[in-house]
Amino acid sequence: MSMVCLSDFEAYAKKYLPKIAWDYFAAGADDCTTRDENILAYKRIRFRPRMLRDVSMMDIRTKILGTQISFPVGIAPTGFHQLAWPDGEKSTARAARAMNTCYIASTYSTCTLEEISAAAPGGLHWFQLYIHRNRAASQQLVQRAEALGFQGLVLTADLPYTGKRRDDVRNGFRLPPHMKVRNLERAFEVCKMSPLDPSVTWNDIYWLRSLTRLPIIIKGILTKEDAELAVRHGVQGIIVSNHGGRQLDEGPATVDALVEVVEAVRGRVEVYVDGGIRKGSDVLKALALGAKCVFIGRPVLWGLAYKGEEGLQEVLRILQDEFRLSMALAG
Amino acid sequence: MSMVCLSDFEAYAKKYLPKIAWDYFAAGADDCTTRDENILAYKRIRFRPRMLRDVSMMDIRTKILGTQISFPVGIAPTGFHQLAWPDGEKSTARAARAMNTCYIASTYSTCTLEEISAAAPGGLHWFQLYIHRNRAASQQLVQRAEALGFQGLVLTADLPYTGKRRDDVRNGFRLPPHMKVRNLERAFEVCKMSPLDPSVTWNDIYWLRSLTRLPIIIKGILTKEDAELAVRHGVQGIIVSNHGGRQLDEGPATVDALVEVVEAVRGRVEVYVDGGIRKGSDVLKALALGAKCVFIGRPVLWGLAYKGEEGLQEVLRILQDEFRLSMALAG
Amino acid sequence: MSMVCLSDFEAYAKKYLPKIAWDYFAAGADDCTTRDENILAYKRIRFRPRMLRDVSMMDIRTKILGTQISFPVGIAPTGFHQLAWPDGEKSTARAARAMNTCYIASTYSTCTLEEISAAAPGGLHWFQLYIHRNRAASQQLVQRAEALGFQGLVLTADLPYTGKRRDDVRNGFRLPPHMKVRNLERAFEVCKMSPLDPSVTWNDIYWLRSLTRLPIIIKGILTKEDAELAVRHGVQGIIVSNHGGRQLDEGPATVDALVEVVEAVRGRVEVYVDGGIRKGSDVLKALALGAKCVFIGRPVLWGLAYKGEEGLQEVLRILQDEFRLSMALAG
Amino acid sequence: MSMVCLSDFEAYAKKYLPKIAWDYFAAGADDCTTRDENILAYKRIRFRPRMLRDVSMMDIRTKILGTQISFPVGIAPTGFHQLAWPDGEKSTARAARAMNTCYIASTYSTCTLEEISAAAPGGLHWFQLYIHRNRAASQQLVQRAEALGFQGLVLTADLPYTGKRRDDVRNGFRLPPHMKVRNLERAFEVCKMSPLDPSVTWNDIYWLRSLTRLPIIIKGILTKEDAELAVRHGVQGIIVSNHGGRQLDEGPATVDALVEVVEAVRGRVEVYVDGGIRKGSDVLKALALGAKCVFIGRPVLWGLAYKGEEGLQEVLRILQDEFRLSMALAG
Repeated sequence: MSMVCLSDFEAYAKKYLPKIAWDYFAAGADDCTTRDENILAYKRIRFRPRMLRDVSMMDIRTKILGTQISFPVGIAPTGFHQLAWPDGEKSTARAARAMNTCYIASTYSTCTLEEISAAAPGGLHWFQLYIHRNRAASQQLVQRAEALGFQGLVLTADLPYTGKRRDDVRNGFRLPPHMKVRNLERAFEVCKMSPLDPSVTWNDIYWLRSLTRLPIIIKGILTKEDAELAVRHGVQGIIVSNHGGRQLDEGPATVDALVEVVEAVRGRVEVYVDGGIRKGSDVLKALALGAKCVFIGRPVLWGLAYKGEEGLQEVLRILQDEFRLSMALAG
Repeated sequence: MSMVCLSDFEAYAKKYLPKIAWDYFAAGADDCTTRDENILAYKRIRFRPRMLRDVSMMDIRTKILGTQISFPVGIAPTGFHQLAWPDGEKSTARAARAMNTCYIASTYSTCTLEEISAAAPGGLHWFQLYIHRNRAASQQLVQRAEALGFQGLVLTADLPYTGKRRDDVRNGFRLPPHMKVRNLERAFEVCKMSPLDPSVTWNDIYWLRSLTRLPIIIKGILTKEDAELAVRHGVQGIIVSNHGGRQLDEGPATVDALVEVVEAVRGRVEVYVDGGIRKGSDVLKALALGAKCVFIGRPVLWGLAYKGEEGLQEVLRILQDEFRLSMALAG
Repeated sequence: MSMVCLSDFEAYAKKYLPKIAWDYFAAGADDCTTRDENILAYKRIRFRPRMLRDVSMMDIRTKILGTQISFPVGIAPTGFHQLAWPDGEKSTARAARAMNTCYIASTYSTCTLEEISAAAPGGLHWFQLYIHRNRAASQQLVQRAEALGFQGLVLTADLPYTGKRRDDVRNGFRLPPHMKVRNLERAFEVCKMSPLDPSVTWNDIYWLRSLTRLPIIIKGILTKEDAELAVRHGVQGIIVSNHGGRQLDEGPATVDALVEVVEAVRGRVEVYVDGGIRKGSDVLKALALGAKCVFIGRPVLWGLAYKGEEGLQEVLRILQDEFRLSMALAG
Repeated sequence: MSMVCLSDFEAYAKKYLPKIAWDYFAAGADDCTTRDENILAYKRIRFRPRMLRDVSMMDIRTKILGTQISFPVGIAPTGFHQLAWPDGEKSTARAARAMNTCYIASTYSTCTLEEISAAAPGGLHWFQLYIHRNRAASQQLVQRAEALGFQGLVLTADLPYTGKRRDDVRNGFRLPPHMKVRNLERAFEVCKMSPLDPSVTWNDIYWLRSLTRLPIIIKGILTKEDAELAVRHGVQGIIVSNHGGRQLDEGPATVDALVEVVEAVRGRVEVYVDGGIRKGSDVLKALALGAKCVFIGRPVLWGLAYKGEEGLQEVLRILQDEFRLSMALAG
């Protein structure tokens, strides 16, 4: 099977992953309208290609929060990588380091932060955090990440409760017994309620700030109003995201929301975007609209499902090649 | 079979109801354009979700005409519930009371008002009325409803004649011999003409007002002009409705009409809407556009077809959970 | 088979007519975009239905050029009715008279004007004319029609050459040997060129006027500029038409063109429209946009194909009932 | 098999060409969005047809850069005609001359310029050029073309690198061993890098100008900014083109870009367009929007695949007839 574009990896993953795992990764909330809109919105954006510019030398490197990466595509936080590949997040970390890009490790990893860190020492890692009812647990996670050399803290803002993903309900989705949310093992007692705290507000950013010197990036912003609030509360970066269309259905596509967020932020902090990136030209569109870097979610899982670390590298390399080519062709 | 969302109930009903009953409930006028538009119009409306608000406590109760209900979804008047479930409207009334919401009983019920009332004493019931050629019959119905403790009178304004529902014509739809429009048994002699009076005008609201102290809600308004007339003629509430797309095809979707009606009414009376509600987020959209409460029609029949009273409660509970979740996720 | 709406007749005709005849009637030019747009354009127009108006009495009669017809739907000129039913245009004439409406007989009838006239004496007949290279032949036709009591002359303006209908080319369409364009038998010598004159201009209307006292209606106008020219050249009526989408593909839908023509004409002459009428509500839309009357083409042929005169009456009766109902429901 | 419209040739070619050749000709970049948009954009443009104009005599000839052609459709440069028909570009040249139109021979022809020229002496030939890293090779090609009587030089500006055509990657597309890019045989040593120079800029037009007295036409312009640059750099003509949607996906359809280019150019040079022409009415639309002539690409290959020179003539004749008819019907 020849892997030519990201859809090839998607087809592979759909064919070979267990249905329950595929459904979990593919799931969108309710009618999956927003999940699909993330992709369609990129298609609606048109280039105005310019000709006869010298495109023989192109530098596609960029910096995020001061650290250089090889091209403006990082790895968004997604959970449960062992569902896609036995080595789970360790493979993800290795592929990210090999491609010299940023990996945002999820709280809901099936490897510990320590394992991730050890798998790819020197890699650029950020840690994605939910704020738990048990604040001490969140504090401990933050401090573990900082101690391990993670270089950014990504606070997910769009999950006070989990969105309704119909297939997961139908499948009665839960992790197989041999997988665990390892990061939380040490921190939590068995907890019958959802451990996430739906009462979190903007003020909790101050609390988070008091715990760590890491830059704080807020993920899940979709409006100019919230972008303004994020800047005022002192975050270092914003990821425009709708959680892959897995939370509130029928909100805006991320690339559409990006425009208003970038305008509101006026360069005061870095703005990133995730959701719907399937081709190198999508990356170029996001950058043209003001994103500093994009993050990819599901394609990471497809790459892992295909060949683990190697498969993910292939995904990243294809995106990189396509991005470079579309830059050249757009002039 | 696991019932996750309202479409699951629809699929069940389509599979298990006799074709003639399914067709009758599903029917739209002519090409069914408006029936389908009611749903599509909700999909076109996009949220602007806000983050990091404290959504740990949410009160989803509301009041309609002064009476509290557990959440802003009531039961629209639809006919012939025995086609869906043997106990018919008695089950509907019981489910509505169990969920603490409002049930608008149709003139074309297969149970009498007395049976409905007795099935769920203390429930919040409104009575839906057509004005008949035989005004004495209409008067008698109104007075029976008032005497039985119904708390609102819903005048349907959009049915001077019955819309053309092709499948019903093809099927030669009529009630099976063992079912009857029980409310009318006492009131009418056999009548060869349609018993409904197509000459009804706004002035008949004054006549209706003279018969009863119940609040009058007018159902079937789709324009600002008619909304203004309704307010001027002294109604207490307006249900923006196109009769589920069963009357004039190719008029506006109800949620689109809601916007202009709300603007015209300027808070002078309560405005409700029915038609096309299939998810909790649709309820939230209607409320955000100014509706005080929504009413559901076909999903009620699907719930009854699934498991009678219990099935309808499940439908209402799913809508309630979805509504609460979408409120939390929209901030 | 129960005939509930015009699509039922279409399905019947498609099933039972010889393919070559069905294809000829169904044909549109090129990609059939305009043929289909004629229908889609009606669907895009939305009613604003008004309620509580006295619709117990409705008068759906109208007058065209001073003559009363039973409802505002006439029969557009289409050719070769014997392809649909053995009695051909004689049946059409009888059905039109029975329904008390106007029948525009085509030059390309398979019955003579004399036969048509004799089949339905006293019926309201107009005659549709092409101007031929052989002007004497055209003159003779006009004078025959006038002598036979035809009451209007419809000049088709959109056929200097025949449009490219791919299926007709593929099928090598021509009339079966036992059918003839009977009106032209007497008038023409065998003619190798197309007998129609592509050099016709607006000035030929003066020539036509000099031949007859009949009112002249021009058919095929799609722009305000041509509508203005038509009025200035003294026609009595305009039929907005794109020849059923059979001539230039990718021009406007007729109901869209109707709007600009009506505005340009400002009531100076009567404006009619054909193309895409499939439901009574389409008639109402055309009238609401300023048409005095609509004409139907393909549905006539479907009705003939179903049961000749009786089938066409059924088509007209369904349209009439639907038109009356949609008037009542729209208030 | 009766060939009625260009789609018939497409269907034939798809059926009878080897898959690898069909895929190569059909290929678009990435998701093929722009390739398909080229066609859809024509469909979105609507005529305003005018009636009763004398269309008995129509002159469809035009001049491009001073040379008369029989109708405003020329042959765009496409590569590898031997993949479609054994005689390759020799057949193309003969068909173009027979139809008295312009043929732009591609650098990537499978016949030499000398063979093309000899196959159709006296035909109107332009030569399409890429600028190579090896400038001497390009210079030699230009001078060979000029010496052979080619009358125009078409510089392709949109291919600094080859677009990503997924099927070609999957198929591992390359020419069969018995075909060669004959024009380059004499000029190049075996070259491991792509021979095309991605560092070409507008200044290279001056270099090209210094080599030849032939008029220079630039192909691949899609924006008003580049159109202005082209005029300023002294080209004689502009072909609005997106390389058949084979280069940067999700740029504008060519007919949409045509509008802004024509407006920017203000008649200072001739503007042509290619991409998406499938019917005579498309030609008329392009001309109405300001193009002096259109060029067709894939339909040429379909015609060749059908019957070589004769097949291509049939394609051109159909377009010519359709163009003339649509002119007449549009008035």
